[in-house]
Amino acid sequence: MAQKKSIITALLIAATGVGIYLAAGTTPVRAAGSGPAYTSDGKLLQPKGYRNWVFIGSMVTPNGLNNGNAGFPEFHNVYVEQANLAVYRKTGVFPEGTVLVKELTLVREPSHPDGSADEASGRGFFEGEFGGMDVTVKDSKRFSKTGNWGFFNFGHHPLPYATSSVESSKDECAGCHIAGASKTDLTWVQFYPVLRAKN
Amino acid sequence: MAQKKSIITALLIAATGVGIYLAAGTTPVRAAGSGPAYTSDGKLLQPKGYRNWVFIGSMVTPNGLNNGNAGFPEFHNVYVEQANLAVYRKTGVFPEGTVLVKELTLVREPSHPDGSADEASGRGFFEGEFGGMDVTVKDSKRFSKTGNWGFFNFGHHPLPYATSSVESSKDECAGCHIAGASKTDLTWVQFYPVLRAKN
Repeated sequence: MAQKKSIITALLIAATGVGIYLAAGTTPVRAAGSGPAYTSDGKLLQPKGYRNWVFIGSMVTPNGLNNGNAGFPEFHNVYVEQANLAVYRKTGVFPEGTVLVKELTLVREPSHPDGSADEASGRGFFEGEFGGMDVTVKDSKRFSKTGNWGFFNFGHHPLPYATSSVESSKDECAGCHIAGASKTDLTWVQFYPVLRAKN
Repeated sequence: MAQKKSIITALLIAATGVGIYLAAGTTPVRAAGSGPAYTSDGKLLQPKGYRNWVFIGSMVTPNGLNNGNAGFPEFHNVYVEQANLAVYRKTGVFPEGTVLVKELTLVREPSHPDGSADEASGRGFFEGEFGGMDVTVKDSKRFSKTGNWGFFNFGHHPLPYATSSVESSKDECAGCHIAGASKTDLTWVQFYPVLRAKN
Protein backbone atom coordinates (compact mmCIF):
# COMPACT_ATOMS: atom_id res chain seq x y z
CA MET A 1 0.00 0.00 0.00
CA ALA A 2 2.79 2.37 0.95
CA GLN A 3 4.55 1.38 -2.19
CA LYS A 4 1.45 2.07 -4.29
CA LYS A 5 1.13 5.48 -2.68
CA SER A 6 4.76 6.21 -3.46
CA ILE A 7 4.26 5.32 -7.07
CA ILE A 8 1.25 7.61 -7.35
CA THR A 9 3.20 10.41 -5.67
CA ALA A 10 6.09 9.84 -8.03
CA LEU A 11 3.78 9.91 -11.03
CA LEU A 12 2.34 13.24 -9.90
CA ILE A 13 5.77 14.73 -9.30
CA ALA A 14 6.99 13.57 -12.68
CA ALA A 15 3.93 14.83 -14.52
CA THR A 16 4.24 18.24 -12.89
CA GLY A 17 8.00 18.42 -13.23
CA VAL A 18 8.32 17.84 -16.94
CA GLY A 19 5.41 20.06 -17.91
CA ILE A 20 2.16 18.49 -18.95
CA TYR A 21 1.04 18.59 -22.55
CA LEU A 22 -2.63 17.88 -22.18
CA ALA A 23 -4.32 15.82 -24.85
CA ALA A 24 -6.80 17.55 -27.13
CA GLY A 25 -10.35 17.05 -25.94
CA THR A 26 -9.70 17.66 -22.27
CA THR A 27 -11.29 20.82 -20.91
CA PRO A 28 -9.18 22.19 -18.11
CA VAL A 29 -9.90 25.68 -16.87
CA ARG A 30 -6.31 26.68 -17.43
CA ALA A 31 -3.11 25.15 -18.75
CA ALA A 32 -1.06 23.61 -15.97
CA GLY A 33 1.43 25.99 -14.44
CA SER A 34 0.53 28.85 -16.75
CA GLY A 35 -1.67 31.92 -16.78
CA PRO A 36 -1.09 35.63 -16.53
CA ALA A 37 0.95 37.23 -13.76
CA TYR A 38 0.83 40.86 -12.67
CA THR A 39 2.96 43.31 -10.72
CA SER A 40 1.57 44.64 -7.44
CA ASP A 41 0.39 47.76 -9.28
CA GLY A 42 -1.48 45.78 -11.93
CA LYS A 43 0.93 45.67 -14.82
CA LEU A 44 1.03 42.44 -16.79
CA LEU A 45 4.36 40.64 -16.59
CA GLN A 46 5.88 39.53 -19.87
CA PRO A 47 4.80 35.94 -20.64
CA LYS A 48 7.64 33.43 -20.73
CA GLY A 49 8.18 30.37 -22.87
CA TYR A 50 5.53 31.38 -25.40
CA ARG A 51 7.60 30.25 -28.40
CA ASN A 52 7.01 26.71 -27.15
CA TRP A 53 3.24 27.24 -27.13
CA VAL A 54 1.04 26.30 -30.06
CA PHE A 55 1.43 28.60 -33.07
CA ILE A 56 -1.99 29.39 -34.52
CA GLY A 57 -1.15 31.52 -37.55
CA SER A 58 0.79 34.34 -39.16
CA MET A 59 -0.03 37.34 -41.33
CA VAL A 60 1.78 40.28 -42.84
CA THR A 61 0.44 43.75 -43.75
CA PRO A 62 3.62 45.52 -44.89
CA ASN A 63 4.23 49.26 -45.05
CA GLY A 64 4.71 48.98 -48.82
CA LEU A 65 1.09 47.91 -49.28
CA ASN A 66 -0.29 50.47 -46.82
CA ASN A 67 0.93 53.83 -48.12
CA GLY A 68 4.14 53.50 -46.13
CA ASN A 69 2.25 53.69 -42.88
CA ALA A 70 0.86 50.28 -41.95
CA GLY A 71 -0.80 49.89 -38.59
CA PHE A 72 0.91 46.53 -38.26
CA PRO A 73 3.90 46.48 -40.63
CA GLU A 74 5.50 43.29 -39.27
CA PHE A 75 4.74 39.59 -39.51
CA HIS A 76 2.39 38.61 -36.70
CA ASN A 77 3.03 35.19 -35.20
CA VAL A 78 0.37 34.24 -32.69
CA TYR A 79 0.69 31.66 -29.91
CA VAL A 80 -1.63 30.08 -27.35
CA GLU A 81 -1.18 27.29 -24.84
CA GLN A 82 -2.36 23.83 -25.85
CA ALA A 83 -4.88 23.38 -23.03
CA ASN A 84 -6.58 26.72 -23.75
CA LEU A 85 -6.64 25.98 -27.46
CA ALA A 86 -8.35 22.66 -26.75
CA VAL A 87 -11.15 24.48 -24.93
CA TYR A 88 -11.59 26.98 -27.74
CA ARG A 89 -11.80 24.24 -30.34
CA LYS A 90 -14.48 22.50 -28.30
CA THR A 91 -16.55 25.49 -27.21
CA GLY A 92 -15.64 28.47 -29.41
CA VAL A 93 -14.67 30.38 -26.27
CA PHE A 94 -11.29 30.67 -24.56
CA PRO A 95 -11.22 29.81 -20.85
CA GLU A 96 -10.52 32.37 -18.15
CA GLY A 97 -6.80 33.01 -17.83
CA THR A 98 -6.03 32.38 -21.50
CA VAL A 99 -3.01 34.33 -22.72
CA LEU A 100 -2.50 35.00 -26.43
CA VAL A 101 0.93 36.22 -27.47
CA LYS A 102 1.46 37.98 -30.78
CA GLU A 103 5.16 38.23 -31.52
CA LEU A 104 6.17 40.55 -34.33
CA THR A 105 9.02 39.97 -36.77
CA LEU A 106 10.26 42.57 -39.22
CA VAL A 107 9.81 41.93 -42.92
CA ARG A 108 13.28 40.84 -44.03
CA GLU A 109 15.31 43.01 -46.41
CA PRO A 110 12.49 44.47 -48.51
CA SER A 111 13.80 45.28 -51.97
CA HIS A 112 10.60 46.01 -53.93
CA PRO A 113 8.31 49.00 -53.28
CA ASP A 114 5.67 46.68 -51.81
CA GLY A 115 8.17 45.41 -49.25
CA SER A 116 8.77 42.03 -50.84
CA ALA A 117 12.15 40.46 -51.54
CA ASP A 118 13.56 38.05 -54.13
CA GLU A 119 14.83 34.79 -52.68
CA ALA A 120 15.55 31.29 -53.99
CA SER A 121 11.94 30.25 -53.38
CA GLY A 122 10.49 33.24 -55.21
CA ARG A 123 9.44 36.83 -54.62
CA GLY A 124 7.56 37.35 -51.39
CA PHE A 125 7.69 38.22 -47.73
CA PHE A 126 10.20 36.65 -45.38
CA GLU A 127 10.77 37.04 -41.65
CA GLY A 128 13.72 39.04 -40.39
CA GLU A 129 14.49 39.95 -36.79
CA PHE A 130 12.08 39.98 -33.88
CA GLY A 131 10.29 43.32 -33.66
CA GLY A 132 7.82 43.41 -30.81
CA MET A 133 5.19 41.74 -28.70
CA ASP A 134 1.49 42.25 -28.00
CA VAL A 135 -0.42 40.16 -25.48
CA THR A 136 -4.09 39.64 -24.68
CA VAL A 137 -5.46 38.08 -21.51
CA LYS A 138 -8.94 36.67 -20.98
CA ASP A 139 -10.34 37.72 -17.61
CA SER A 140 -14.02 38.56 -17.46
CA LYS A 141 -13.72 40.27 -14.08
CA ARG A 142 -10.58 42.29 -14.60
CA PHE A 143 -11.35 43.29 -18.19
CA SER A 144 -15.16 43.42 -18.22
CA LYS A 145 -15.14 46.84 -19.90
CA THR A 146 -13.16 45.64 -22.93
CA GLY A 147 -15.00 42.50 -23.95
CA ASN A 148 -13.48 40.27 -21.24
CA TRP A 149 -9.99 40.66 -22.68
CA GLY A 150 -7.12 42.89 -21.63
CA PHE A 151 -4.73 44.16 -24.31
CA PHE A 152 -1.05 44.84 -23.61
CA ASN A 153 1.87 46.14 -25.68
CA PHE A 154 5.39 45.11 -24.64
CA GLY A 155 7.05 47.30 -27.26
CA HIS A 156 7.20 47.37 -31.03
CA HIS A 157 10.98 47.28 -31.26
CA PRO A 158 13.83 44.73 -31.25
CA LEU A 159 14.57 42.55 -28.23
CA PRO A 160 14.50 42.91 -25.32
CA TYR A 161 10.82 43.73 -24.96
CA ALA A 162 9.44 45.43 -21.86
CA THR A 163 9.27 43.25 -18.77
CA SER A 164 5.81 44.54 -17.86
CA SER A 165 3.02 46.49 -19.51
CA VAL A 166 0.09 48.66 -18.49
CA GLU A 167 -3.24 47.81 -20.11
CA SER A 168 -3.83 49.53 -23.44
CA SER A 169 -6.84 51.80 -23.71
CA LYS A 170 -10.01 50.61 -25.40
CA ASP A 171 -9.32 52.92 -28.33
CA GLU A 172 -5.85 51.51 -28.86
CA CYS A 173 -6.80 47.83 -29.20
CA ALA A 174 -10.00 46.39 -27.79
CA GLY A 175 -12.33 48.69 -29.73
CA CYS A 176 -11.40 47.21 -33.09
CA HIS A 177 -11.61 43.63 -31.80
CA ILE A 178 -15.03 44.28 -30.26
CA ALA A 179 -16.26 45.88 -33.48
CA GLY A 180 -14.96 43.12 -35.74
CA ALA A 181 -14.74 39.90 -33.80
CA SER A 182 -17.30 39.98 -31.00
CA LYS A 183 -18.93 36.75 -32.18
CA THR A 184 -15.67 34.81 -31.98
CA ASP A 185 -14.45 35.83 -28.51
CA LEU A 186 -12.61 38.88 -29.96
CA THR A 187 -10.35 36.56 -31.96
CA TRP A 188 -10.09 36.88 -35.76
CA VAL A 189 -10.55 33.14 -36.18
CA GLN A 190 -10.87 33.46 -39.96
CA PHE A 191 -7.11 34.14 -40.16
CA TYR A 192 -6.03 31.24 -37.94
CA PRO A 193 -6.41 27.82 -39.54
CA VAL A 194 -4.95 26.09 -36.50
CA LEU A 195 -7.71 27.58 -34.32
CA ARG A 196 -10.29 26.13 -36.67
CA ALA A 197 -8.62 22.71 -36.91
CA LYS A 198 -9.63 19.71 -34.85
CA ASN A 199 -6.09 19.10 -33.66
CA MET B 1 15.00 -0.64 -1.98
CA ALA B 2 12.11 -2.26 -3.86
CA GLN B 3 10.08 0.85 -3.16
CA LYS B 4 12.83 3.12 -4.47
CA LYS B 5 13.01 1.03 -7.61
CA SER B 6 9.25 1.28 -8.04
CA ILE B 7 9.38 5.04 -7.75
CA ILE B 8 12.11 5.27 -10.35
CA THR B 9 10.13 2.99 -12.64
CA ALA B 10 7.02 5.09 -12.10
CA LEU B 11 8.94 8.26 -12.86
CA LEU B 12 10.19 6.80 -16.11
CA ILE B 13 6.72 5.61 -17.09
CA ALA B 14 5.21 8.99 -16.27
CA ALA B 15 7.90 10.93 -18.10
CA THR B 16 7.39 8.82 -21.21
CA GLY B 17 3.62 8.82 -20.94
CA VAL B 18 3.01 12.54 -20.77
CA GLY B 19 5.58 13.45 -23.39
CA ILE B 20 8.76 15.14 -22.29
CA TYR B 21 9.37 18.78 -23.04
CA LEU B 22 13.09 18.97 -22.50
CA ALA B 23 14.55 22.20 -21.19
CA ALA B 24 16.60 24.31 -23.61
CA GLY B 25 20.29 23.71 -23.19
CA THR B 26 20.11 19.93 -22.93
CA THR B 27 21.58 18.05 -25.87
CA PRO B 28 19.68 14.83 -26.38
CA VAL B 29 20.25 12.88 -29.55
CA ARG B 30 16.55 12.87 -30.24
CA ALA B 31 13.31 14.15 -28.71
CA ALA B 32 11.74 11.52 -26.48
CA GLY B 33 9.12 9.44 -28.21
CA SER B 34 9.54 11.16 -31.55
CA GLY B 35 11.48 10.71 -34.72
CA PRO B 36 10.64 9.49 -38.20
CA ALA B 37 8.76 6.27 -38.88
CA TYR B 38 8.69 4.38 -42.17
CA THR B 39 6.58 1.76 -43.89
CA SER B 40 8.18 -1.63 -44.58
CA ASP B 41 8.91 -0.47 -48.13
CA GLY B 42 10.66 2.70 -47.01
CA LYS B 43 7.98 5.34 -47.31
CA LEU B 44 7.94 8.00 -44.60
CA LEU B 45 4.80 7.96 -42.48
CA GLN B 46 3.05 11.28 -41.99
CA PRO B 47 4.34 12.94 -38.80
CA LYS B 48 1.70 13.39 -36.10
CA GLY B 49 1.21 16.15 -33.56
CA TYR B 50 3.50 18.57 -35.36
CA ARG B 51 1.24 21.57 -34.73
CA ASN B 52 2.23 21.23 -31.09
CA TRP B 53 5.92 21.39 -31.97
CA VAL B 54 7.90 24.64 -31.95
CA PHE B 55 7.03 26.99 -34.81
CA ILE B 56 10.21 28.47 -36.26
CA GLY B 57 8.89 30.85 -38.91
CA SER B 58 6.59 31.60 -41.80
CA MET B 59 6.94 33.06 -45.28
CA VAL B 60 4.76 33.71 -48.28
CA THR B 61 5.71 33.89 -51.98
CA PRO B 62 2.31 34.32 -53.64
CA ASN B 63 1.40 33.56 -57.24
CA GLY B 64 0.56 37.24 -57.76
CA LEU B 65 4.19 38.20 -57.19
CA ASN B 66 5.60 35.34 -59.25
CA ASN B 67 3.99 35.72 -62.68
CA GLY B 68 1.04 33.61 -61.62
CA ASN B 69 3.23 30.58 -61.25
CA ALA B 70 4.96 30.58 -57.87
CA GLY B 71 6.99 27.54 -56.92
CA PHE B 72 5.58 27.88 -53.40
CA PRO B 73 2.38 29.94 -53.58
CA GLU B 74 1.19 29.23 -50.02
CA PHE B 75 2.21 30.39 -46.57
CA HIS B 76 4.91 28.07 -45.21
CA ASN B 77 4.69 27.38 -41.51
CA VAL B 78 7.66 25.39 -40.29
CA TYR B 79 7.83 23.27 -37.14
CA VAL B 80 10.52 21.34 -35.26
CA GLU B 81 10.55 19.53 -31.95
CA GLN B 82 11.90 21.40 -28.95
CA ALA B 83 14.71 18.97 -28.14
CA ASN B 84 16.06 19.03 -31.70
CA LEU B 85 15.80 22.81 -31.83
CA ALA B 86 17.83 23.03 -28.64
CA VAL B 87 20.65 21.06 -30.27
CA TYR B 88 20.59 23.25 -33.37
CA ARG B 89 20.77 26.41 -31.32
CA LYS B 90 23.77 25.08 -29.45
CA THR B 91 25.69 23.47 -32.30
CA GLY B 92 24.33 24.83 -35.59
CA VAL B 93 23.52 21.26 -36.64
CA PHE B 94 20.32 19.28 -36.20
CA PRO B 95 20.70 15.88 -34.53
CA GLU B 96 20.06 12.60 -36.34
CA GLY B 97 16.36 11.85 -36.50
CA THR B 98 15.28 15.48 -36.62
CA VAL B 99 12.00 15.98 -38.49
CA LEU B 100 11.07 19.37 -39.92
CA VAL B 101 7.46 19.81 -40.98
CA LYS B 102 6.47 22.58 -43.37
CA GLU B 103 2.71 22.93 -43.42
CA LEU B 104 1.23 25.04 -46.20
CA THR B 105 -1.77 27.32 -45.89
CA LEU B 106 -3.46 28.98 -48.84
CA VAL B 107 -3.34 32.76 -49.10
CA ARG B 108 -6.80 33.80 -47.95
CA GLU B 109 -9.23 35.44 -50.40
CA PRO B 110 -6.76 37.36 -52.57
CA SER B 111 -8.46 40.44 -53.99
CA HIS B 112 -5.56 42.41 -55.46
CA PRO B 113 -3.45 41.27 -58.43
CA ASP B 114 -0.50 40.60 -56.13
CA GLY B 115 -2.62 38.20 -54.06
CA SER B 116 -3.10 40.50 -51.10
CA ALA B 117 -6.42 41.27 -49.39
CA ASP B 118 -7.88 44.22 -47.48
CA GLU B 119 -8.74 43.49 -43.88
CA ALA B 120 -9.30 45.50 -40.70
CA SER B 121 -5.58 45.45 -39.92
CA GLY B 122 -4.57 46.64 -43.37
CA ARG B 123 -3.73 45.32 -46.82
CA GLY B 124 -1.61 42.21 -46.80
CA PHE B 125 -1.43 38.45 -46.81
CA PHE B 126 -3.57 36.33 -44.50
CA GLU B 127 -3.78 32.59 -43.99
CA GLY B 128 -6.75 30.67 -45.35
CA GLU B 129 -7.21 26.91 -45.34
CA PHE B 130 -4.54 24.25 -44.96
CA GLY B 131 -3.01 23.41 -48.31
CA GLY B 132 -0.28 20.82 -48.00
CA MET B 133 2.68 19.38 -46.19
CA ASP B 134 6.38 18.87 -46.90
CA VAL B 135 8.70 17.08 -44.50
CA THR B 136 12.46 16.73 -44.18
CA VAL B 137 14.26 14.12 -42.09
CA LYS B 138 17.88 14.22 -40.96
CA ASP B 139 19.52 10.81 -41.36
CA SER B 140 23.11 10.77 -42.52
CA LYS B 141 23.03 7.07 -43.38
CA ARG B 142 19.70 6.84 -45.15
CA PHE B 143 20.02 10.14 -47.00
CA SER B 144 23.78 10.45 -47.51
CA LYS B 145 23.31 11.28 -51.19
CA THR B 146 21.14 14.33 -50.51
CA GLY B 147 23.12 16.20 -47.89
CA ASN B 148 22.07 13.98 -44.97
CA TRP B 149 18.42 15.02 -45.32
CA GLY B 150 15.51 13.23 -46.96
CA PHE B 151 12.77 15.35 -48.55
CA PHE B 152 9.13 14.21 -48.67
CA ASN B 153 5.92 15.69 -50.09
CA PHE B 154 2.62 14.63 -48.53
CA GLY B 155 0.54 16.54 -51.06
CA HIS B 156 0.01 20.18 -51.96
CA HIS B 157 -3.76 20.11 -51.54
CA PRO B 158 -6.38 20.47 -48.77
CA LEU B 159 -6.65 17.99 -45.91
CA PRO B 160 -6.30 15.08 -45.61
CA TYR B 161 -2.68 14.84 -46.69
CA ALA B 162 -1.15 11.55 -47.79
CA THR B 163 -0.49 9.07 -45.00
CA SER B 164 2.93 8.16 -46.40
CA SER B 165 5.38 9.54 -48.93
CA VAL B 166 8.23 8.28 -51.10
CA GLU B 167 11.42 10.30 -50.98
CA SER B 168 11.53 13.17 -53.46
CA SER B 169 14.31 13.15 -56.01
CA LYS B 170 17.38 15.32 -55.58
CA ASP B 171 16.21 17.56 -58.41
CA GLU B 172 12.83 18.14 -56.80
CA CYS B 173 14.03 19.40 -53.41
CA ALA B 174 17.47 18.62 -52.03
CA GLY B 175 19.38 20.14 -54.93
CA CYS B 176 18.26 23.68 -54.15
CA HIS B 177 18.88 23.28 -50.41
CA ILE B 178 22.37 21.90 -51.04
CA ALA B 179 23.14 24.75 -53.44
CA GLY B 180 21.84 27.48 -51.15
CA ALA B 181 22.07 26.32 -47.56
CA SER B 182 24.89 23.80 -47.27
CA LYS B 183 26.66 25.83 -44.58
CA THR B 184 23.60 25.84 -42.32
CA ASP B 185 22.66 22.14 -42.40
CA LEU B 186 20.44 22.69 -45.48
CA THR B 187 18.18 24.99 -43.48
CA TRP B 188 17.52 28.56 -44.60
CA VAL B 189 18.23 29.89 -41.13
CA GLN B 190 18.13 33.50 -42.31
CA PHE B 191 14.33 33.24 -42.64
CA TYR B 192 13.72 31.67 -39.22
CA PRO B 193 14.19 34.06 -36.31
CA VAL B 194 13.19 31.39 -33.80
CA LEU B 195 16.03 29.15 -35.02
CA ARG B 196 18.48 31.98 -34.39
CA ALA B 197 17.07 32.88 -30.99
CA LYS B 198 18.52 31.66 -27.70
CA ASN B 199 15.17 30.37 -26.47
